[in-house]
Amino acid sequence: MPTIKTLIDLLEIQSVSSDESNIMEFLLNTINKRKHSWKVSPEIHHGPELHDCLLLKFGNPRTAVFAHIDTIGFMARYENQLVPVGSPELVEGTVLVGNDKYGPIRCKLMIRDDQPFHDFGRGIERGTLLSYEQHVQIDEKFIHAAYLDNRLGIFNALKLCEFLEDGWVVFSTYEEHGGGSMPYLLRYIQEKHPVSQALISDITWVTDGILHEEGVAISIRDKFIPRKKYLDKIIGLAERSGVPFQLEVEGHGASDGREVQFSPYAIDWCFIGAPEDNVHTPHEKVALSDLEAMTEMYKYLMAHL
Amino acid sequence: MPTIKTLIDLLEIQSVSSDESNIMEFLLNTINKRKHSWKVSPEIHHGPELHDCLLLKFGNPRTAVFAHIDTIGFMARYENQLVPVGSPELVEGTVLVGNDKYGPIRCKLMIRDDQPFHDFGRGIERGTLLSYEQHVQIDEKFIHAAYLDNRLGIFNALKLCEFLEDGWVVFSTYEEHGGGSMPYLLRYIQEKHPVSQALISDITWVTDGILHEEGVAISIRDKFIPRKKYLDKIIGLAERSGVPFQLEVEGHGASDGREVQFSPYAIDWCFIGAPEDNVHTPHEKVALSDLEAMTEMYKYLMAHL
Amino acid sequence: MPTIKTLIDLLEIQSVSSDESNIMEFLLNTINKRKHSWKVSPEIHHGPELHDCLLLKFGNPRTAVFAHIDTIGFMARYENQLVPVGSPELVEGTVLVGNDKYGPIRCKLMIRDDQPFHDFGRGIERGTLLSYEQHVQIDEKFIHAAYLDNRLGIFNALKLCEFLEDGWVVFSTYEEHGGGSMPYLLRYIQEKHPVSQALISDITWVTDGILHEEGVAISIRDKFIPRKKYLDKIIGLAERSGVPFQLEVEGHGASDGREVQFSPYAIDWCFIGAPEDNVHTPHEKVALSDLEAMTEMYKYLMAHL
Repeated sequence: MPTIKTLIDLLEIQSVSSDESNIMEFLLNTINKRKHSWKVSPEIHHGPELHDCLLLKFGNPRTAVFAHIDTIGFMARYENQLVPVGSPELVEGTVLVGNDKYGPIRCKLMIRDDQPFHDFGRGIERGTLLSYEQHVQIDEKFIHAAYLDNRLGIFNALKLCEFLEDGWVVFSTYEEHGGGSMPYLLRYIQEKHPVSQALISDITWVTDGILHEEGVAISIRDKFIPRKKYLDKIIGLAERSGVPFQLEVEGHGASDGREVQFSPYAIDWCFIGAPEDNVHTPHEKVALSDLEAMTEMYKYLMAHL
Repeated sequence: MPTIKTLIDLLEIQSVSSDESNIMEFLLNTINKRKHSWKVSPEIHHGPELHDCLLLKFGNPRTAVFAHIDTIGFMARYENQLVPVGSPELVEGTVLVGNDKYGPIRCKLMIRDDQPFHDFGRGIERGTLLSYEQHVQIDEKFIHAAYLDNRLGIFNALKLCEFLEDGWVVFSTYEEHGGGSMPYLLRYIQEKHPVSQALISDITWVTDGILHEEGVAISIRDKFIPRKKYLDKIIGLAERSGVPFQLEVEGHGASDGREVQFSPYAIDWCFIGAPEDNVHTPHEKVALSDLEAMTEMYKYLMAHL
Repeated sequence: MPTIKTLIDLLEIQSVSSDESNIMEFLLNTINKRKHSWKVSPEIHHGPELHDCLLLKFGNPRTAVFAHIDTIGFMARYENQLVPVGSPELVEGTVLVGNDKYGPIRCKLMIRDDQPFHDFGRGIERGTLLSYEQHVQIDEKFIHAAYLDNRLGIFNALKLCEFLEDGWVVFSTYEEHGGGSMPYLLRYIQEKHPVSQALISDITWVTDGILHEEGVAISIRDKFIPRKKYLDKIIGLAERSGVPFQLEVEGHGASDGREVQFSPYAIDWCFIGAPEDNVHTPHEKVALSDLEAMTEMYKYLMAHL
């Protein structure tokens, strides 16, 4: 069973988009150790033809759950310039860490003319990926850390695995940087054992309509809009579930759901996840009660969808 | 035969992108009633694996005609905020209508700091879709209404059905909001009975080069550019057809043709449609003679392409 | 063997995106004449189901090389307006050439309110494509011409053909204007003889980190980011090759690699090409030594990847 220890281990692994092989290996090991204690032991799909992605097939899937395993970060350019990977917040003084062939790196993010730089004492090898330095803090009500987006989405997917009877659980890459793994993951699923429904296990934003401790957010739309028929079905089930939830309506932002929407398969999708504050900073903050509601909601929906 | 009554019925149905099931049912009923009077009675393809889309297969198709059945609109967010669906013009005072679980809604669009709001006397349920209130006016030369884009494209496709011997006629969803049905529609067509040519039955813009009452517009480009070989073939046929037409060259805008361009199939595409004024407002305006030219052009091209 | 004569012939052919049939025919003729002198005589794949693209299959491919055959340019709109095709630099006074049904066209690019116009003495037929007038200059160290991007990428691919034992060499269209041929090319390749690796034979930019005469650029990223595992493999081989190379890290720009990234196949990709100055002007400039390094690098990588 994934414990808080698993979550902290997950939070410590660097996996900036394009470099997700370490976290994939960690997940593979974790799953292999635990799968025998799960209600249903899944088929595990991975390998070079799936790059650094990982799929679990439980029973006879009707629905697939997607959790992305990459994070935002920075890449070293020329001189001491940095280029963002995904959309990190550019906050002067943020501590970044990484490794190049000369050894470990710990430096600060500097901003000049709105462009990001580092202050490391030596040059950093071109193309080196840097992440936020991690500080996990858990109190009675909240978890604070970098990369809750989407370590909590992964954690939620692993919790679901304990109880899941039928469904795909899919760990995708590159979500923070435009995507690119979803198209082959969806083709793989539709060729092996097709589904018509998807849930996106990811973390959303605290806004003027979505608050901490009000339950998991079911997203009616972000930049893209799921089909009304599917939303009605999900919201109907959510009401019957007794699990606290909030309905989100946003005009921008996107998730792995975007690539389900534009895939050559008629698969309905919906984003369901706990909200966080301080998005894409080292200080992301999520209410433990919302994370628990997320887990309960996935358990209920995957049984009833 | 689709009459002006059919067109008015079509114009009254709400179908904001993501909520196209009602208009699909209307089209299905209309087609089932009329198909026996058509020159060729088509195969009708629809069902859950095609979501809210509908395809008609006549004879041995060489070309597919696509008409989108969704419209722009608004979605209720938090407080009295609205979020656009597609790209509606934001005109203060525009009347919007819809329904939520508390009953029917009729309200005005308000603009504050360039953001859209509503003035309804009570809160509107999150995620509720709102459309322009409809007022259809037809005089000797013009039709004025909301959503001529793309009710006229649908009407044109239904007129074509009366005479069509070989071809797919396809009713797509989500066009106004980034698309997403075309990829699975194209895969479906290419797996059932492939084609190498497409026409996009949609409505374009009156501009400094495209005028009312000058004929149907054949679009040489919008943001995207069809293949020159196919354009040359179409323009050559158009010249022989005797039907009045205008050549359009735009630098922006897009249609279902965009998704044909980026599909994994080498299918040529071209947008052909009557021009309208007051695009994406409740007062769209199209010349009846241009609509007639559109219908005649599709009839000719589908026989000769 | 492709000589400087072949390169100059290539540079003289107009092939603005959407109108690539002439250069495709030229390539087909050239390849048919030369293939018998190549180490391996390839299978040639082309025809209406591949539009204006061309594929060569050598032996048992593990890797595919993509070179786009289209160029940027302009299209005539209404009055004397022009609309860009791709992203040409808008430099007042640039000489443009083309043909319409009234005869040959030679005119100057004019800019008013940031919009492009032409100064031709008569109207130009709507939809007519215009290219930069070509002036090729070759000295001891540099080649100067319009459209080195991507005639040099094509030239590099043709040089590679002389020595290639196993691989696909693919000539794609529409790259400068958003793409659209890669999806069907990739599907075709994966259905005929699948590969898991791709190289993009294209021309990049001289910047503050990439200089003339420092070798071929291996791009660690542009707007999109190849998978780290594949980059590590390529850079490792490049180091062993002895061929001079530079590592590029950019935050924007894209290539046919973008469409590999977003395809429904898990194919690794990397952009490798000589850098040029004066990008997308009539005066593009590339060092001959960098072009030679490009050719040598492709020869080495295609044998060892």
